[in-house]
Amino acid sequence: MSSIGQNIGTLPLKVDKGQLFLIDQRLLPEKLELFDATNLESMCFAISDMVVRGAPSIGIAAGYALAIHAKELVTELAEPVSFLACLDQARLKLQKTRPTAVNLAWATNQIYTEATKLIQVKNLDLKLVPAALFALAERLFSEQLAANIALSSFGQSLIPQAASILTHCNAGSLAACGWGTALGVIRSHHFNGGRPTVYVDETRPRNQGSKLTVWELRQDHIPCTLICDSLAGYLMSQKKVDLVLVGADRIATNGDTANKVGTYSLAALAHAHNIPFYVAAPLSTVDPTLSNGQSIELEERSAQELTRIGNDLITLNDVPVLNLAFDITPHHFISSIITEYGVLRPPYKDSIAGALSSKQKSMNESPANKSTAKESTVV
Amino acid sequence: MSSIGQNIGTLPLKVDKGQLFLIDQRLLPEKLELFDATNLESMCFAISDMVVRGAPSIGIAAGYALAIHAKELVTELAEPVSFLACLDQARLKLQKTRPTAVNLAWATNQIYTEATKLIQVKNLDLKLVPAALFALAERLFSEQLAANIALSSFGQSLIPQAASILTHCNAGSLAACGWGTALGVIRSHHFNGGRPTVYVDETRPRNQGSKLTVWELRQDHIPCTLICDSLAGYLMSQKKVDLVLVGADRIATNGDTANKVGTYSLAALAHAHNIPFYVAAPLSTVDPTLSNGQSIELEERSAQELTRIGNDLITLNDVPVLNLAFDITPHHFISSIITEYGVLRPPYKDSIAGALSSKQKSMNESPANKSTAKESTVV
Repeated sequence: MSSIGQNIGTLPLKVDKGQLFLIDQRLLPEKLELFDATNLESMCFAISDMVVRGAPSIGIAAGYALAIHAKELVTELAEPVSFLACLDQARLKLQKTRPTAVNLAWATNQIYTEATKLIQVKNLDLKLVPAALFALAERLFSEQLAANIALSSFGQSLIPQAASILTHCNAGSLAACGWGTALGVIRSHHFNGGRPTVYVDETRPRNQGSKLTVWELRQDHIPCTLICDSLAGYLMSQKKVDLVLVGADRIATNGDTANKVGTYSLAALAHAHNIPFYVAAPLSTVDPTLSNGQSIELEERSAQELTRIGNDLITLNDVPVLNLAFDITPHHFISSIITEYGVLRPPYKDSIAGALSSKQKSMNESPANKSTAKESTVV
Repeated sequence: MSSIGQNIGTLPLKVDKGQLFLIDQRLLPEKLELFDATNLESMCFAISDMVVRGAPSIGIAAGYALAIHAKELVTELAEPVSFLACLDQARLKLQKTRPTAVNLAWATNQIYTEATKLIQVKNLDLKLVPAALFALAERLFSEQLAANIALSSFGQSLIPQAASILTHCNAGSLAACGWGTALGVIRSHHFNGGRPTVYVDETRPRNQGSKLTVWELRQDHIPCTLICDSLAGYLMSQKKVDLVLVGADRIATNGDTANKVGTYSLAALAHAHNIPFYVAAPLSTVDPTLSNGQSIELEERSAQELTRIGNDLITLNDVPVLNLAFDITPHHFISSIITEYGVLRPPYKDSIAGALSSKQKSMNESPANKSTAKESTVV
């Protein structure tokens, strides 16, 4: 995985001799430690407790986890039917860990569907199936990385030379499994001679901005300033923000976008201040089954994320808390959606359909080992 | 001070046998402890470190502190000229502790001006001056409390019977030195048979919402839900918020309002969603020297408020931080300003001038011991 380029950023996972390790993103930037997520249970914990987070990274990690789990299953089960039943259970278990990001379902469905195809259509020997699934997980990873690099390359066209950019949460290499999406665009701009400066909001309640985005920008020597989430509007009013750039966890076919809580506020504020608001995400973030964002399930996380600072209770222990991890930004607040198939513009119903159709066409031309964005170069 | 009513809420200060104690608001709700701020140095520390906070409470506490300091000075200095010079120094020292709230300057100027008047105009024996200043500090306190009760009574008219109210920071009894301003309106509504429910945002970076507002609302059994600051916009979009109600630290004569950072974002979001946005504050919060908010100095506080969670560093130790403690909300985002002289409406240039003129007239009619809102009753 390290052969793709020198500048791909810090990858959130590493596979070594059949073992799957995650960078424990809960501990950054204080500690750079690996978390062993080889076991299915440990991966489920890692996703729900946010050892690994970021929609694309969760998807790729879960894809690997399911492929590795398949290898374990084969040592115990000789019957293809039982194997598929257990693999299906494992897939559903992984999918339940976090409900909002579509990439988790997308990647695990790909692995499971491949298994059924290999067994039921191609009659592949069961013992050979895990290696094929692992190869697919690898392919999903490299396609993901290529997509990030491609969308970042496209996104640069939207960024003025010395732009002051506001970003939210973390949509860098750690979140997007290489290069980054929103941060990927900023990185490509920076490495190609741009002089971006970034306002990073802390992103309550988990502080991914303070912990991860600041750290990732520093790796690349991109100047940034940390602010409270709530300062964003005032900075916009003072003309300190040229554009807002965020990632996405799920995008409906009309462009409505689920992303980290607080994204809606930023989009509405950007709209009110005539500031461009861009979403950067690979097309795998689009949920083709959703015509709009209304039915996206918004994960509600533990009250403790707000009631405690570290281990200390800072409010009443029984105060009612509404801790939505995500919110939905309606398409009319989004200036463009930056994908590996180009910069999509409103009306998104048409532009997203066009991009999905191009992707399908590209996959049909070369279904196996096809990197949809292989023409792009690592900058 | 406890004779005024049973329901005035938790007062932020207590004077006992010449000693001045503050509730240490940094420790709530975990611990209810007193902080001895009798000494001028300790009061300066208490204000800058936010042992006492909230514009009106800071003003009253500083008024008492200056009066008590006068007593100390008299034991050391026999010369009125030296006394006034030292009192002036103490006043300026107090005023420098926090630059944005106008009440601090207002109250300490009142005490100092009274001292000069007593000495230079009325030729009062220097030994008698401290008691007179202490009496003035007491009067400022009771006027403040009466103003809060009066404005809360006026504000009720704006609140629907079962309103869902979003508030920011803490503008309760602790902040406003009795009853409360924004929370005062909610309390009056509640005690008079309303059924308000309150969304309390945590109010980064000091979490006054989580720590103080939740605690104060619980004292009165007013239902509340704690949220991230950044969720506010999405809740508005989902029609979960009927109105926004906040306090103020300084109001220009055109209605532009400095208040806790994040107020601007909430006001802009409320405006974009056609939700009323109300400011509740005593007229002492108006700075008659400012025609608009542009020249209000916005305090920038320590980076550590964002870089640390408790004692733990959560980001790079040298990350640039912009930690403005306040922002300015332009008058056109404010639906009404609720004062002890009634609910002021746009154009504020006229309505604020009218209220200030009524106040002046009322003071001229009965300059000493005049409670401008003495007709109001504690509900």
